[in-house]
Amino acid sequence: MLNNWKGAAPLSGADERMAKQKPRTLSGFMELLPQKQMLFERMTDLLRKSYSLYGFTPLDTPIIEASEVLLAKAGGETEKQIYRFTKGDSDLSLRFDLTVPLAKYVALHYPELNFPFRRFQIGKVYRGERAQRGRFREFYQADIDVIGDGKLDIINEAEIPSVIYNTFTALGLKRFQIRVNNRKILNGFYAMLGLTEKSGDIMRTVDKLDKIGPEKVAELLTDEAVGVSPEQAQEILQFIAIRGSQSEVLSALEQYRGRNPVFDEGLNELTTVVQYLGAFGVPAEAFAVDLTIARGLDYYTGTVYETTLLDHPEIGSVCSGGRYDNLAEYYTDKQLPGVGISIGLTRLFYVLEEQGYLNPESNTSSADVLILPMTQDLAPAIAFATQLRAAGIRAQLYTEQKKFKQKMAYADKIGVPFTAFLGEDEIAQNKVSVKNMADGTQETLSPEDAIARIQAAIAVSATAAPIREPAN
Amino acid sequence: MLNNWKGAAPLSGADERMAKQKPRTLSGFMELLPQKQMLFERMTDLLRKSYSLYGFTPLDTPIIEASEVLLAKAGGETEKQIYRFTKGDSDLSLRFDLTVPLAKYVALHYPELNFPFRRFQIGKVYRGERAQRGRFREFYQADIDVIGDGKLDIINEAEIPSVIYNTFTALGLKRFQIRVNNRKILNGFYAMLGLTEKSGDIMRTVDKLDKIGPEKVAELLTDEAVGVSPEQAQEILQFIAIRGSQSEVLSALEQYRGRNPVFDEGLNELTTVVQYLGAFGVPAEAFAVDLTIARGLDYYTGTVYETTLLDHPEIGSVCSGGRYDNLAEYYTDKQLPGVGISIGLTRLFYVLEEQGYLNPESNTSSADVLILPMTQDLAPAIAFATQLRAAGIRAQLYTEQKKFKQKMAYADKIGVPFTAFLGEDEIAQNKVSVKNMADGTQETLSPEDAIARIQAAIAVSATAAPIREPAN
Repeated sequence: MLNNWKGAAPLSGADERMAKQKPRTLSGFMELLPQKQMLFERMTDLLRKSYSLYGFTPLDTPIIEASEVLLAKAGGETEKQIYRFTKGDSDLSLRFDLTVPLAKYVALHYPELNFPFRRFQIGKVYRGERAQRGRFREFYQADIDVIGDGKLDIINEAEIPSVIYNTFTALGLKRFQIRVNNRKILNGFYAMLGLTEKSGDIMRTVDKLDKIGPEKVAELLTDEAVGVSPEQAQEILQFIAIRGSQSEVLSALEQYRGRNPVFDEGLNELTTVVQYLGAFGVPAEAFAVDLTIARGLDYYTGTVYETTLLDHPEIGSVCSGGRYDNLAEYYTDKQLPGVGISIGLTRLFYVLEEQGYLNPESNTSSADVLILPMTQDLAPAIAFATQLRAAGIRAQLYTEQKKFKQKMAYADKIGVPFTAFLGEDEIAQNKVSVKNMADGTQETLSPEDAIARIQAAIAVSATAAPIREPAN
Repeated sequence: MLNNWKGAAPLSGADERMAKQKPRTLSGFMELLPQKQMLFERMTDLLRKSYSLYGFTPLDTPIIEASEVLLAKAGGETEKQIYRFTKGDSDLSLRFDLTVPLAKYVALHYPELNFPFRRFQIGKVYRGERAQRGRFREFYQADIDVIGDGKLDIINEAEIPSVIYNTFTALGLKRFQIRVNNRKILNGFYAMLGLTEKSGDIMRTVDKLDKIGPEKVAELLTDEAVGVSPEQAQEILQFIAIRGSQSEVLSALEQYRGRNPVFDEGLNELTTVVQYLGAFGVPAEAFAVDLTIARGLDYYTGTVYETTLLDHPEIGSVCSGGRYDNLAEYYTDKQLPGVGISIGLTRLFYVLEEQGYLNPESNTSSADVLILPMTQDLAPAIAFATQLRAAGIRAQLYTEQKKFKQKMAYADKIGVPFTAFLGEDEIAQNKVSVKNMADGTQETLSPEDAIARIQAAIAVSATAAPIREPAN
C-alpha cells in the first residue's frame, strides 16, 4: 500500500480524548490565510520561472540530515539554534540553510553531476532563534548557485546582478539597488597597509559605519582590540568613502593599482562585472559599486552582493551572496568554487506585507469563475465547468443549498472575478449568464463566447505582479 | 538583517575540523539527481495546475507543530512513527500527514475562512517507519479537500473522480481505474444483517479478499473473533461479489432498497456520483463501483475512493480518500464535513521510475539553449542570452576555458536541445548559428529567427507529459 491514506486515522489509537485541544500554530512559524498564501505562491512561481530562464535546475534535498553531516562545519555557540534530536539511534538535525545541503549534495553526487552545475532551491529551513516579531524559526530561502569543478569563469559573477535584477523586477519591485564589492579588493587594500592579519577585525568594524559614523569607526579601529595606527585608520576611512558612478569608483580604484596583486585581481574582476552589466540587461541605476560591503564571512573570496530596497534601507539586504572558493571542503578534497545568492523569502514577504507592498490588483481568488446552477438537474452547470477547465479557466461549482444573496456574498468574499448562472432559460438556449463582479455588468453569452470573454480578462490579471510599490 | 546570508558561516564556530566528513543522505529520504528532479517538479507543477482548475486554493502549513496539537487524535502504538522532540521547553512534532494540519488550520482560522473551503496542499510529511526499499520517512503528499460548514453538498463527492481523472491524465497516465464505494451502503447492509457492532471487524476481514480468497474470508468471518453465522457470511460474500458495469452494480444494489435507511441514503449518493460522471468528463472505463473498498478507517462516512494502475495492481491504491463528517472534532465543536483525496507522491514517483514509466521524451535539461561564445568580447553572446530570456527561453552561457569538444560533451550530458555559437562571422552579420542537438542540423539565423525556431521546438517538448506508459 502506498503512503496515501487520508487522515491521521492510521496513527490513531483507541484513546480518543474528546475534550477539545485548543488549535494553535507555533510562534515564529508563518501560516498565511488563503489570499495571502496565493500571493506567496505567485512569488515562488515567479522565482522559479526567473531562475529557470538562466539555466538553473531545481533541486530538492531532505529537511532532515544526519547531524554529523549537517554540522561538519558548524560548532560552538551558534549550534544552539539548530533543531537537533534523536530518533532511534540516529542523531538528526533540521537544515538551517540550503548551502550546507548543497555542499553535501555536490560532494556526494559529484561523479554524476555536470560542471558548471547550476541549481536553484526554494525550501524551508529552521533556526530556533528567540521568538520576536518578524523573526521566523521556519522560513523559506530561495537560493541559486553556480558550482565549478576546480575553476569557475568570472562571467558567472557578472551574471548574478542580472538574475537579481530580473527576478526582483518580475516580482514587481522597482526601487531597489544591487550593491557589489569584491573581497579581493578589500583584502588587497589591507595587505597594502600591512594589515592582512587584522583585516577580519577591520571589516567587522567598518561594517558599523552606517550605524555609528566615521569618527566612532576611527576610534574603534585605533583601539587596542584592533590596533590600527591613526594614519592607517584615515586611509581606511578614505578608501571606504569612495563613492560615485560605476566609472568614477573604478577610476578611483585604479589609483591603487600596481601595489598589490590580489587588489589588482579584484579590480579586474569588478571591472569585468561592471563591463557586462548592460549586455546582461541591468540598467545602471539599479546597480552600485559599494566598497563598504564585505558580507562578514571568510567564506566569500571574490565578488559579494547585497540588495537593498531604496525606500526601506532599515530592512537591510534582501538578497545577498557572493563568490566562494570551496563549497564542500568539509566533505571532499575536490575544489569546488562557486557563486550564489539567497533570498530570505518568508522574511521578505513579511516585510513587504507590513509595508503595504502586496498588490491589491493581483487576483488572489481560488477560482476565476464561480458557477451558480439554478436548476434541479446540475448536468448543464457541470458540463460548463468541465468546458471552462478544459480551456484552462479555474472554475468552481457552488451547489450548497443557500439563498441567492448568500451565494453572492460567498462570491464576493472569495474575490472571484466572474460568476456564471445557468437557469432554465439559459439552458434552453444553450447560453450562460456571466457577471463581471468588478463592474457588475452581466451578459448572456454562448459558452464559447463566455470562455473567450473570461480568458481575455484573466490574461490581464495573470500578469499583475504580486508586489506593487506604493506611490511616493 | 534578513535571514538571507549564504553559507553556514554565521553558524560556524572557531573549531574547523578539516578532517573530511563523509557526505551521505539518510536512508528513507529521497534525493534525486537533476534530470529526475526535473520530472518530479513537472509532476508537482501539473498537480498544482490541475487542482487549481477546480478552484482549490494552495495552502502551506508548518512542518513542525506543538505535539499536543498534532497528536490530539493520535495515540498509543503508532505514535512511535512520529518524529517528536523537545527544543527548549517546547514539545514538538513533525507532521505525519496533511489532514491533521488542515483540521488545525480550519479550526484555528474558522472565522476568516469561507465555506465551502477548497484547498490543496503539496508538502513533505514524516514517518519514522522501518527503512526498506521503496519506503520513505520523508515523503510528499498531494492533497485536496473541500470542507463545508455544517453541511456539504453531495456534488463535491461526484466531482472528486473528475479531479483524479484529469490529474492522472495530465501526468500522462492512461491505464488506471478510479474505484468508488459508499460507506453508508456497507454500514446499512451490515445493519440489515443485524451486524452493526461487528461491521468494523467484518470490513477489516473482507478487505483481505484479494489476498486470501472467499473461502478463507468466510472462515475468518465465522471465527470466534468476528463471530458471524455461516448464513450471514454467505450473504456478505454474495454482496461483496456484486460486479459489473456501473448500471449493473446499481441495479443489483436497488434490490436491497427499502430495508435500511442508511443503506438507501448511501445508494442515493452513489447513484448521484455515477449520474454526473459524464458531465464531469470522466469516461466510463476509467471508473468502477467496487463494493470491496472500505478504506478501513472509521473517519470516512460516505463516498470512498481508491485508484489503481491497471498494469500494476500489486502497488495498491495510488490516490485514495473519501467523505468524512467531522474534520476537526478534536479542536472544535463546529461540525466540518468534507471530502478529500491524497496522492503519496514520493512513493508514486518511485514506483513509476521503477516500472519505467518516466517519459524519456520529456525535456529534462536545465536549459533550452547553451550559448557558446567564440570571441574574446562576450558582450554579443551575453546580449543574445538576454534576448532569449526575455522571450521566455531558458538560456545558459558556457564561458569556461575548455576545448570545443569538451563544451559539446557538456551540452550532450545536460541534454540541452539547442546550442548556439557566436563567432566573428556571426557577430559581423548580426546572426547566430543554432545547432539542433537531436538531429545535428545547424543553421545560421538572425537572433529573431533563432528565437522563433527555438520557441516552436520547446513548445512541443513542454507539452510532453512526465509519464509515459510502456506499450503493452
